[in-house]
Amino acid sequence: MLTNLKKSNKSGARLGRLKTAHGPIKTPFFMPIATKAAVKNLSVEDLNCLGAPIILANTYHLYLQPGEKLIKKAGGLHKFMNWPHPILTDSGGYQVFSLSKINKIKADGVEFQSHLDGSKHFLTPEKSIQIQQDLGSDIMMAFDVCPAGEAKQKIISEACATTFDWAKRCFKTWQKTKKKQQLFGIIQGGIYKKLRDQSLKQITGLDFSGFAIGGLAVGEERKDMYKILEYIAPKLPENKPRYLMGLGRPEEIVFAVKQGIDMFDCVIPTREARHGRLYQFCSLKQKGAIKLFDNLAYQTLNIKNEKYKMEFSPIDKNSKNELLRKYSKSYLHHLFKTQEGLGLRLATLNNLEFYLRLMDQVQGAIKNDRL
Amino acid sequence: MLTNLKKSNKSGARLGRLKTAHGPIKTPFFMPIATKAAVKNLSVEDLNCLGAPIILANTYHLYLQPGEKLIKKAGGLHKFMNWPHPILTDSGGYQVFSLSKINKIKADGVEFQSHLDGSKHFLTPEKSIQIQQDLGSDIMMAFDVCPAGEAKQKIISEACATTFDWAKRCFKTWQKTKKKQQLFGIIQGGIYKKLRDQSLKQITGLDFSGFAIGGLAVGEERKDMYKILEYIAPKLPENKPRYLMGLGRPEEIVFAVKQGIDMFDCVIPTREARHGRLYQFCSLKQKGAIKLFDNLAYQTLNIKNEKYKMEFSPIDKNSKNELLRKYSKSYLHHLFKTQEGLGLRLATLNNLEFYLRLMDQVQGAIKNDRL
Repeated sequence: MLTNLKKSNKSGARLGRLKTAHGPIKTPFFMPIATKAAVKNLSVEDLNCLGAPIILANTYHLYLQPGEKLIKKAGGLHKFMNWPHPILTDSGGYQVFSLSKINKIKADGVEFQSHLDGSKHFLTPEKSIQIQQDLGSDIMMAFDVCPAGEAKQKIISEACATTFDWAKRCFKTWQKTKKKQQLFGIIQGGIYKKLRDQSLKQITGLDFSGFAIGGLAVGEERKDMYKILEYIAPKLPENKPRYLMGLGRPEEIVFAVKQGIDMFDCVIPTREARHGRLYQFCSLKQKGAIKLFDNLAYQTLNIKNEKYKMEFSPIDKNSKNELLRKYSKSYLHHLFKTQEGLGLRLATLNNLEFYLRLMDQVQGAIKNDRL
Repeated sequence: MLTNLKKSNKSGARLGRLKTAHGPIKTPFFMPIATKAAVKNLSVEDLNCLGAPIILANTYHLYLQPGEKLIKKAGGLHKFMNWPHPILTDSGGYQVFSLSKINKIKADGVEFQSHLDGSKHFLTPEKSIQIQQDLGSDIMMAFDVCPAGEAKQKIISEACATTFDWAKRCFKTWQKTKKKQQLFGIIQGGIYKKLRDQSLKQITGLDFSGFAIGGLAVGEERKDMYKILEYIAPKLPENKPRYLMGLGRPEEIVFAVKQGIDMFDCVIPTREARHGRLYQFCSLKQKGAIKLFDNLAYQTLNIKNEKYKMEFSPIDKNSKNELLRKYSKSYLHHLFKTQEGLGLRLATLNNLEFYLRLMDQVQGAIKNDRL
């Protein structure tokens, strides 16, 4: 349930409060990705220091390793990884199609081979919900088919049909539970307005806890993504949370917020950190600055660049995180050059703090009708 | 200077206080290794949480990368890596002979090729001291020649002669400074009593701040190492700190403490952590337990072993470190299986805490004449 909803009078942006079994979260929010029950190179204490309100974990990965039964036995994913705040789990669908060696859609579900050891598995809508129930996430996602951005219309149309069929089966399975965990439906349709409209009608016809837009930020051109987002986002039910899966660059998130999206997740901050690419707010006048809104802009820098070798200023002098105020860019450059694990941790802290502060800025701007 | 010296009445073990420019340290103590200005996978905040009193950094590595001039410009090694407590730097000698591709001892010093890029360098006693001065460590080590444990007597004899020559040159260079940094001499001689006696006489003839035994734990048999240690350690000057370089397993450290050694460093806790091998105190009755003294014993366990998959108890329920009390063995097993960076951090915290607590136990036992 989305409460305290305030709409910007300048755009479709919304400010709200999403209730979950592990506490409420202010929207719009960003979810750091804890693929295999850990945000890469961070502890949950690090995440708490950053003030991360919720994280996302991947059903496909946890199903394969260590297995959802083990996590259930540990007392659920929250307990297994010591995370006391909300968790969203995806359905496994996206990874089954993008990661597994061989996958084949059958009437009942998908047969696939593990990318780890080639072992055979069969995932169905019912099975996906069961796994997510065993994990004990606060928000579960319906099992869907997500084609690549460049897929032909026919493929996407078929994916929509299967997604609807599976959505109904997920919904039915969920109806039999006590519904402590929320379940979100996913709208597919690629960059085709007609398919999006149809999928929206089908999926929103089921009383899910919230709705996600899937099949965007999967390889299509940014202008196409913006066009379809502008078209479809405002049509999503107003009183329910809206989640844009897998997005994105900071300016893309700001764009999506203006279309009325409440929830985001993306590997960019954590993945780019592992390559030494740091996100930082900067002045609009800064060379290479990318404008977000008002006077807010950001830049990315590659800490491995020689020019940071002698840069003794803090990684981020304005950070709320002591480590980022204390360690210098020069030291971080050295840690990357010598491949020390601490470097990955500091860069990840920097980028996640950036994304979380971006959402604070976005929330503040909606509150004051500046976005 | 070693003050408040108390000798055990049961062995040669000594309890004391070593003054340094960055504060005093209780002896005997263990130094975690921060090879390249970082203890692998830990932050200095982690080290502070563990109560590490001093760390060791490697001159050879820091000279090559990022270079001592950069660190000097950063304000010294303490500032560069944000470590407020004492630092000991080795002389670079050991790595020049063990790591560099080609090395050639000349009258003045050693010519060698960097193991990183093959670039040519020339290290002399004077240069080693200059680098250590630029790094600004609290304790510098004299530049020495350390042959392998299986080296022939002739080789070791020559190494002793060169080590003495270089010790004099290091000492002379140090005499010209303000002596804010201490300088320790190193005694070589392998497992040969005669060579050790001679080296001891030569090196202790110079008024160094302390004395180290080098050339042990370099591949020789443990019984030979114990024999020579028993022989030579009690002959070291009483009023100065005694450092046994590169040792060792917990039981070896306890043995050396009984011979009157005050200082230790070793890669074992950090390196074994990276392979998932954890050190833990245990009951003497535990299968595979290794006795230390009194009722104190330890075991090692490999967290990657299948038997820890379902072991939901804490990594160490008695740890002073919150992370080790909070995360389970099962979760740590999973982190290693999925190669998550957090696993390396937790295992390193565990092992360093073990080594540091071992030294607490040792200090307590000397105090009460139990060792």
